[in-house]
Amino acid sequence: MILSPERAQRPYKFGERAESISHPEYDPKCPFCPGNEAETPKEVFALRDGSAPDTPGWRVRVVENKFPALSLNREGLRATYGLYRWMEGVGRHEVIIESPIHNRTPALMSIDEVKDLLTAYHRRYLELSKGPRYPIIIIFRNQGPQAGTSLAHPHSQLIASPVVPRHIRYDLKEAERYWDDQGSCVYCDLMKFEVQERARLVSKNDDFLGIAPYASTLPYELWILPRVHQASFGELPEVGIEPLAWILRDCLRRLYRLLNNPDYNYVIHSAPHSTAGQPHYHWHLEILPRLTTRAGFEIGSGMYINIVAPEVAAERLRSVQVEEER
Amino acid sequence: MILSPERAQRPYKFGERAESISHPEYDPKCPFCPGNEAETPKEVFALRDGSAPDTPGWRVRVVENKFPALSLNREGLRATYGLYRWMEGVGRHEVIIESPIHNRTPALMSIDEVKDLLTAYHRRYLELSKGPRYPIIIIFRNQGPQAGTSLAHPHSQLIASPVVPRHIRYDLKEAERYWDDQGSCVYCDLMKFEVQERARLVSKNDDFLGIAPYASTLPYELWILPRVHQASFGELPEVGIEPLAWILRDCLRRLYRLLNNPDYNYVIHSAPHSTAGQPHYHWHLEILPRLTTRAGFEIGSGMYINIVAPEVAAERLRSVQVEEER
Repeated sequence: MILSPERAQRPYKFGERAESISHPEYDPKCPFCPGNEAETPKEVFALRDGSAPDTPGWRVRVVENKFPALSLNREGLRATYGLYRWMEGVGRHEVIIESPIHNRTPALMSIDEVKDLLTAYHRRYLELSKGPRYPIIIIFRNQGPQAGTSLAHPHSQLIASPVVPRHIRYDLKEAERYWDDQGSCVYCDLMKFEVQERARLVSKNDDFLGIAPYASTLPYELWILPRVHQASFGELPEVGIEPLAWILRDCLRRLYRLLNNPDYNYVIHSAPHSTAGQPHYHWHLEILPRLTTRAGFEIGSGMYINIVAPEVAAERLRSVQVEEER
Repeated sequence: MILSPERAQRPYKFGERAESISHPEYDPKCPFCPGNEAETPKEVFALRDGSAPDTPGWRVRVVENKFPALSLNREGLRATYGLYRWMEGVGRHEVIIESPIHNRTPALMSIDEVKDLLTAYHRRYLELSKGPRYPIIIIFRNQGPQAGTSLAHPHSQLIASPVVPRHIRYDLKEAERYWDDQGSCVYCDLMKFEVQERARLVSKNDDFLGIAPYASTLPYELWILPRVHQASFGELPEVGIEPLAWILRDCLRRLYRLLNNPDYNYVIHSAPHSTAGQPHYHWHLEILPRLTTRAGFEIGSGMYINIVAPEVAAERLRSVQVEEER
């Protein structure tokens, strides 16, 4: 658990839910809209047309979270208290403002816009991976109120943490066990099998696959994986950003059209960058539509009830007409 | 993942949310209201005043789920498919109808009503624990739409599973590791420490403690633990049901008053009944208020941001005036 009472100051209250209204292209009160750059912490990265930092003219802009769950200004002290252990919440928590347009969403962006977004992810990932301070960097996106968004303006988030969380350690360990047993990467084997079976394939290009994973825990869950083996997101070469932009937009657009702009989270799962090049883990992006509520059944049993088989989800998503414009 | 397309027939649609309206005491269209017993599968247990099964006159009634996530009518076959493994969804999925009154909720029940409810839990737990078929039995309750309820009439659920889920195995293993290291039960040690510290204590009687756990993942999370060591819920003696009813109602009532009838899940965590008497695990009931949305941060990092420290939650809950009537 991360205790973060500062975050109670965020523009969000218990029980309050954002309305599913249509937003304007520009909202003068939005801290992420152009002209309001002074309302956020100073930018740490931006793609812009030569204009000065923290002024309008940017296409993508990265700032520290104003209400960070983790903070730079701590030592990362670890201590014990009775039988418990705790540490200061040290780390980085950044916001990637995805577009100057207030009501933009990646599903409807041009390829160049998605490329800018992914370039920001990639550059921040590589920058924060320097040195041993943050063994793990997690990049994610919350779309819509069911997915936990507190601000309408399109944005992603990045966490750089000194502690590798338990569920990531578990996944890394299981992948390593598979490699020890089989001598191959479980994700590479999975892709080989899925290409042969076809039933769960949703989208592909020369560099990436988009699949509805076998035994998906959520209806319309999708994974995007690089077809060549790469353990860490940082191993993606710069030329890989355009095909990733293409497949990410393609998958999000299919979900958008089929399910009428569903709420979702996506998360980039990556090995710690210090272990880049290792043979057993394989970075990928998981898209998790938020169509159902996690209830006592899932919480108590850890098993997820899924009412849409991934083969059915994949077939429906494949049949969506997606225009090919940039 | 449990694939359960039958459950798509349930009275619930994607994206639909129940309104937080006040319900009547009786709803002629509700399958759980007295007089509509024929609309559910036949009862497997009831507490009633001598009337015939599947007729009115019951106080608590247990039936198989009409849309079970797991089914009795399968062999539990396990097989492989490429690199995947799967098995038939065998098991029991029961519904405990908690009261004949349509708009009753445990927080406002009499002690006798909560005792009836817990008696039903306990009897079904013991009955389904006979023999090796179901190593694990999970009892849980969903209160309100944020917690995933699809029916307003008060009910709990029970799952009897042939597979011990991964997160339960993990907890059991961690508790065993603590016992191997320390020679004591981690939950017993935790209670000793919490009684001494007092800051996170919310409620107590001679047999149980109600505490806001250290490093709670959710605001106002509460745990109820038996003060004597018991690994399995089945080890609770019948005389323990009344003090459990008292503390469960006390905790739920404090949440109800302080947070204005919040949505919540609760889950009974227990060791497999076949390991009853073992020294390292300790059954307990976890109450999880659903005040916040699990977003990309939590999904991606596995770390939970909690904006209310358990010490603050405990202090606020202790200060709630709770009437002492039965």
